[in-house]
Amino acid sequence: MTILITAGPTREAIDPVRYLTNRSSGKMGYALADAAAQKGHRVILVSGPTEIDVPDGIDFIPTESAADMYQAVEYWIGKADIAIFAAAVADYRPAQIAEQKIKKSGDTLTLELVRNPDILGSARSTFGFNGVLVGFAAETEDVEENALGKLERKGCDLVVANDVSRKDIGFDSNENEILLVYPDRIVPLEKASKHHLGHQLIEVVEGMITPSNHQ
Amino acid sequence: MTILITAGPTREAIDPVRYLTNRSSGKMGYALADAAAQKGHRVILVSGPTEIDVPDGIDFIPTESAADMYQAVEYWIGKADIAIFAAAVADYRPAQIAEQKIKKSGDTLTLELVRNPDILGSARSTFGFNGVLVGFAAETEDVEENALGKLERKGCDLVVANDVSRKDIGFDSNENEILLVYPDRIVPLEKASKHHLGHQLIEVVEGMITPSNHQ
Repeated sequence: MTILITAGPTREAIDPVRYLTNRSSGKMGYALADAAAQKGHRVILVSGPTEIDVPDGIDFIPTESAADMYQAVEYWIGKADIAIFAAAVADYRPAQIAEQKIKKSGDTLTLELVRNPDILGSARSTFGFNGVLVGFAAETEDVEENALGKLERKGCDLVVANDVSRKDIGFDSNENEILLVYPDRIVPLEKASKHHLGHQLIEVVEGMITPSNHQ
Repeated sequence: MTILITAGPTREAIDPVRYLTNRSSGKMGYALADAAAQKGHRVILVSGPTEIDVPDGIDFIPTESAADMYQAVEYWIGKADIAIFAAAVADYRPAQIAEQKIKKSGDTLTLELVRNPDILGSARSTFGFNGVLVGFAAETEDVEENALGKLERKGCDLVVANDVSRKDIGFDSNENEILLVYPDRIVPLEKASKHHLGHQLIEVVEGMITPSNHQ
């Protein structure tokens, strides 16, 4: 099967030097890509900037901003049976990107932000994807409630939720402890390495493929 | 001699997940630290978050925000004969850090920023440093003019200026091409590896030590 995976943070430029980003390391998404490739799937990895070596045997699509990632996903999702959106995509970007480095002036500065396109939310409606759709929810509070809301709003088959306020399983950690949030049930997975969870999750999504959503 | 070097970007938190930062890789500052240590100096490296391995034989002070870096420099600069500020410190930080991940709402968002403390500008006036003071100016336009202004305003003995709009010598590059901007003259150095320039610059600052500013 062909599995599209997004991973890492996005960078939203303020000027040629500064940008908005987030603490996603990409480790979970890359672990998924690695696991999927090892199991013989074709993997398309659409990644924001990370420091991780690209796993062997995958199609790697580097991106920077949420807009870049949206375009890449829009193009590649048509080829996928399963789409796993593990990237931490910025919800907002600066309304304008300054062409030159902004010089400091004044004690305060107001940065106007505008909404980014919603990549996960576009999968069903705009991209017409009818394969297995998996979202990620990195939360700091109300983890289950937020994940369930995301599942319903975005038309996901599964949302993988974790509490990134916990230092032991946060973005930069090599471990994670996740909840599998389905429309009708929540399944906690034991704390484990992201590598191990990557393999577990690929098995889970393989089991969700039915003839109707196998394109 | 004891050389204090700052390196890397800073991260200014918006909430537990998002932050403002810049494209500094830390490569130039770490090359300086490495060169100084190899020449037998005591090196105190105050660094923002980078992906570079810490060179052997140096005192490493990890920091994250500009406020962290300010505090670290305030403490350590009293021990230094030479201070080289190669870090790309954020001029502004969010006025407030949200305790929980900010949920998206609305098509726009306004981020209020406030000025960060000026670390280089505090060296002479606030910290009372009278050793050799070297600043860096990463510019995208009017490189010489901006570097000279910085030299004068901050009381530097030398400003190392480069044009980060050039892709071949930018933040993430392993090469750089710099101007040495002194109060009375500008000396261009040939494009070279950051490693090589690190050694050249350490020789330059060694030559600037006089009995009066050797503490």
